[in-house]
Amino acid sequence: MFDVSGGVILAAGKDMHGLIAELYPLCRSISGEGLRETLRILRGRIPIEIREVPTGTKMFDWTVPDEWNIRDAYVKDPRGRKVIDFQRSNLHVVGYSVPVRRSIPLGELREHLFTLPDRPDWVPYRTAYAGGAWGFCLSHNQLLALEDGQYEAVIDSTLGPGSLSYGELLIKGKLEDEVLISTHACHPSLCNDNLSGVAVATKLAQELMGRPLRYSYRFLFIPATFGSIAWLASHQGQVGRIKHGLVLACVGDSGEITYKRSRRGDAEIDRAMQHVLRRSGDGGRIIDYVPYGYDERQYCSPGFDLPVGCLSRTPHGRFPEYHTSADNLEFVKPGALAHSFATCLAVIDILENDTRYRNLNPLCEPQLGRRGIYRSWADQTDGGKDEMALLWVLSLSEGRKSLLEIAERSGMPFDIIKKAADILREHGLLEEISA
Amino acid sequence: MFDVSGGVILAAGKDMHGLIAELYPLCRSISGEGLRETLRILRGRIPIEIREVPTGTKMFDWTVPDEWNIRDAYVKDPRGRKVIDFQRSNLHVVGYSVPVRRSIPLGELREHLFTLPDRPDWVPYRTAYAGGAWGFCLSHNQLLALEDGQYEAVIDSTLGPGSLSYGELLIKGKLEDEVLISTHACHPSLCNDNLSGVAVATKLAQELMGRPLRYSYRFLFIPATFGSIAWLASHQGQVGRIKHGLVLACVGDSGEITYKRSRRGDAEIDRAMQHVLRRSGDGGRIIDYVPYGYDERQYCSPGFDLPVGCLSRTPHGRFPEYHTSADNLEFVKPGALAHSFATCLAVIDILENDTRYRNLNPLCEPQLGRRGIYRSWADQTDGGKDEMALLWVLSLSEGRKSLLEIAERSGMPFDIIKKAADILREHGLLEEISA
Amino acid sequence: MFDVSGGVILAAGKDMHGLIAELYPLCRSISGEGLRETLRILRGRIPIEIREVPTGTKMFDWTVPDEWNIRDAYVKDPRGRKVIDFQRSNLHVVGYSVPVRRSIPLGELREHLFTLPDRPDWVPYRTAYAGGAWGFCLSHNQLLALEDGQYEAVIDSTLGPGSLSYGELLIKGKLEDEVLISTHACHPSLCNDNLSGVAVATKLAQELMGRPLRYSYRFLFIPATFGSIAWLASHQGQVGRIKHGLVLACVGDSGEITYKRSRRGDAEIDRAMQHVLRRSGDGGRIIDYVPYGYDERQYCSPGFDLPVGCLSRTPHGRFPEYHTSADNLEFVKPGALAHSFATCLAVIDILENDTRYRNLNPLCEPQLGRRGIYRSWADQTDGGKDEMALLWVLSLSEGRKSLLEIAERSGMPFDIIKKAADILREHGLLEEISA
Repeated sequence: MFDVSGGVILAAGKDMHGLIAELYPLCRSISGEGLRETLRILRGRIPIEIREVPTGTKMFDWTVPDEWNIRDAYVKDPRGRKVIDFQRSNLHVVGYSVPVRRSIPLGELREHLFTLPDRPDWVPYRTAYAGGAWGFCLSHNQLLALEDGQYEAVIDSTLGPGSLSYGELLIKGKLEDEVLISTHACHPSLCNDNLSGVAVATKLAQELMGRPLRYSYRFLFIPATFGSIAWLASHQGQVGRIKHGLVLACVGDSGEITYKRSRRGDAEIDRAMQHVLRRSGDGGRIIDYVPYGYDERQYCSPGFDLPVGCLSRTPHGRFPEYHTSADNLEFVKPGALAHSFATCLAVIDILENDTRYRNLNPLCEPQLGRRGIYRSWADQTDGGKDEMALLWVLSLSEGRKSLLEIAERSGMPFDIIKKAADILREHGLLEEISA
Repeated sequence: MFDVSGGVILAAGKDMHGLIAELYPLCRSISGEGLRETLRILRGRIPIEIREVPTGTKMFDWTVPDEWNIRDAYVKDPRGRKVIDFQRSNLHVVGYSVPVRRSIPLGELREHLFTLPDRPDWVPYRTAYAGGAWGFCLSHNQLLALEDGQYEAVIDSTLGPGSLSYGELLIKGKLEDEVLISTHACHPSLCNDNLSGVAVATKLAQELMGRPLRYSYRFLFIPATFGSIAWLASHQGQVGRIKHGLVLACVGDSGEITYKRSRRGDAEIDRAMQHVLRRSGDGGRIIDYVPYGYDERQYCSPGFDLPVGCLSRTPHGRFPEYHTSADNLEFVKPGALAHSFATCLAVIDILENDTRYRNLNPLCEPQLGRRGIYRSWADQTDGGKDEMALLWVLSLSEGRKSLLEIAERSGMPFDIIKKAADILREHGLLEEISA
Repeated sequence: MFDVSGGVILAAGKDMHGLIAELYPLCRSISGEGLRETLRILRGRIPIEIREVPTGTKMFDWTVPDEWNIRDAYVKDPRGRKVIDFQRSNLHVVGYSVPVRRSIPLGELREHLFTLPDRPDWVPYRTAYAGGAWGFCLSHNQLLALEDGQYEAVIDSTLGPGSLSYGELLIKGKLEDEVLISTHACHPSLCNDNLSGVAVATKLAQELMGRPLRYSYRFLFIPATFGSIAWLASHQGQVGRIKHGLVLACVGDSGEITYKRSRRGDAEIDRAMQHVLRRSGDGGRIIDYVPYGYDERQYCSPGFDLPVGCLSRTPHGRFPEYHTSADNLEFVKPGALAHSFATCLAVIDILENDTRYRNLNPLCEPQLGRRGIYRSWADQTDGGKDEMALLWVLSLSEGRKSLLEIAERSGMPFDIIKKAADILREHGLLEEISA
């Protein structure tokens, strides 16, 4: 099992929060320079490839949309003061706004202004994919303070040919079979709904690189929906290699873990996550697949039906800060990021080690005492009380049940069951069954 | 989906109650003129065929019994007063009583008198299938008031060759596959245990006639046990056409709906009824099959094992009025009849529309926005909150799951799921799978 | 069904307690004369064969160990008084102690003395399988009373070539298929953990001998672990005949019945025991298989996976008297022994009678009234309320469901269902399906 100490986990939390802080100011979108710059920063930490898919490319039922870029945007009030300023927060501009440079009376401008009356201090996050739209977001208190008169609205954006960018990293293991870790990276200054997943995925990649691995691990940092569709469309022949997968999203708030099962509902990733959450004692809830959410919608579409679940803490839309300026650096916590990271590692530990064995002495029990196995056990664990694990592994290793299934049946932790299997194998009592 | 307004349903309740009132005075039995006259009255509303099976006909383990008819019956007290009079209520004569014309002392007469001491104002309903028996039913208070002396007992009945009658109506749909609606019609002046089923079945037939239908609908108005055995024995080769079925009995009292599953337990009719009862919010309970009850005993006998459930409100024997003079015109309510009728229609709606589709765009989600599907949706439903139905239908339409199963899995109402499927099919995203 | 009256059951309880009292003083062990003498006493009641497996015999991963015998043992205090005396209780010597004859100061002797400080009046039961060990067990109060000085420790034992003994009895039934009843008989003066199983198994054998039986019944009285391994190793080719089995252990205390399922979890023995415990109304609990316990560990090892469960009252280790001098003749109760015996008989009744039938009149119900079946029923049972059993058997006898499964589905007792099947078969309505 991976040997990651509590201190390492906690330090990882601080490091992930630091990465979020570094990426926070960038104005990411479905496409464009903000996303590209984000990927370049990640490349400073892990060796991702940055892929570019040209606008207009067909991908199943979809087409890569025009690339959107923005240099500046503001609204000046009748006295010439910048009352809304993109330079202060990229949330102030509605994403994918077309270029605008107009003098406009407040009454008309209001139709392009978006606020949250119930949360008068927060700025909403909005995107307009419909052609030709533009707008600004601001706090409701700001809106109420605007005085009548003629305003100047400027959005210095471009919308045209270019490409859709995403980052990809394959860490090779012993097998060609893959574990997919996917996270979206297309939201501007939002921390939980975006950067938390980016940070945890980056940390996982750092942790896995250089380790001996059974599975290969594929990391995708993608614009939501478009990115997963682009990847699936261009890798249709090899998706069968994906044996397990996780979409990471909203993994930095202080709520409990929420795991949404894959569409299959009983995939190994689903059972492994259930085992980890049950054992952790930290609570956490597991919900069934629904065809709404993040990129698992595409990975689990019926033509692919990949075993991909989604890990969150408080699910999207269930926290009031969702898609507002309050989803900021204070909203995501180093401890929560560390806990999400540790949860992923624990699940990966199971996936890496969950094999099937055959009991080579199936007729009556083997004589463990004669072989000194109880002594091996005491040397490698905290002693006697877990010796039942040896008996469980012997009893259930007929080649059909995996170690995870034995852990579930026995009610014992996976790592104890794995340790028992190791000792029994060393003493020639078990042999691994090749898949 | 059938478009039946609340007003139509309520009017149907009143109409069904009217039919019950019309049929109430007739002295029905397993055979004879009362049953035949009942069928003739129904023929005035729906085009049933009246079948006659001659007495002595073998049908599996059974034989059609002698036909029983009665013209008059009474008991005169020592002073010559008619103290029990068949003309006032046909419940006063034990069904299938042999002819009697005797002067008899009260002591001996008592052995032929049946009352309900616990319900001293009610007259019980009794039948004597054993050969040679006869008797009268009366209220216990009446019995207590009888004075000693010599009585005259007269039953002007006949028991002999004839035939067993039943009514049958086939409403043809697109398919030869059938939905069976069966109700018994062999009880004299009892409203819930008999006429309520007759009335709801008649109304359903009226409602379905003239509609475009997928299934063919077979209605049977039969004497209990004998009628279903007679029909099964003479249609053995075609029972395989029956894909779904309902026995209707005791559907007019003001209790909650009770649905008893078919012997199969998970037939489509069982799941459809469960969906309707869950969605209705009116309560209602579902019980497993037991080999006792109404004609489902025959339809579900192991050699046939047809997917036929039984719909009641308060089940037989669970209401004190059962098989007494208190099961009268006041005991059955227009509103309860209307609710039973609406429940049947809702189930039929599901049966008619429950098909399997194949998602023609299974690789990633189709782009619904580009097709204006959300707008179609808003036009046809009350808007946005049910858009998840589109995603559920796309996600689960691989050809294996029917719309009802998708409704169950998603927790959404069948009609919303059906509407979503219609829209998706219109936009070329789904194709129906032929059975 | 077996006709065993309540009086017979109660008398059996007293008789079993008497057998326990007779066997109590013997110093049983894994091997040796105490075990052999025990088997000889049993042979006075039931015709068991006494098998001997020579020491050194290989049996799967195990070897038959040296035979241990003991003639005498004591500890004399400095004043020459026997303060510990094997003749008073065989628990005073640690089982398998090597021979000793030493003068030894108290300080050194203490390392060979074992007590229960928490239960200062009880003597523990201990065995030393490690080579060269010896020791004495005594009450903690006794230990505290020992005065300083030089003691004399004598154990007059032998440990060397010989054989492992066990008792075996096969009661032949109509079939070669077997029911296995296994109990360990290797503990010295302990009543519940040892002799209770021996007594109930002996009584069961007495009860079954001379009866017409469908199954053959194999009884094993064995030293734990070694005995079951020895039997399995020497009968490997015929274990497939064992269709059901029970290990009996700790069946004499006054706690509730505990049944531990076979490793299969849904074997017929598991379902039969569940039915009996549910119907008895005496409580009782059923637990899933765990690979720890008595000889079911060997019978259920994955290479055999026999359908063998374990019947106890309070499970081993859950009563404080376990493996102490307090597990004595007062701790086991005639009533509890009788109840365990009756439970076994009830389960055997189900196994003997649980067959599958085919309804020979599957098309609609047969006419039971015409055949006088309701009258047969009333003659053979306490009457009407169980007539539903007739309908259930007819409804579910298609050849797939056994009578036990029909009992479970209907919620009716097995014996009523069996009675209904007998009546229906006598009337030509059912035929038994050969296995």
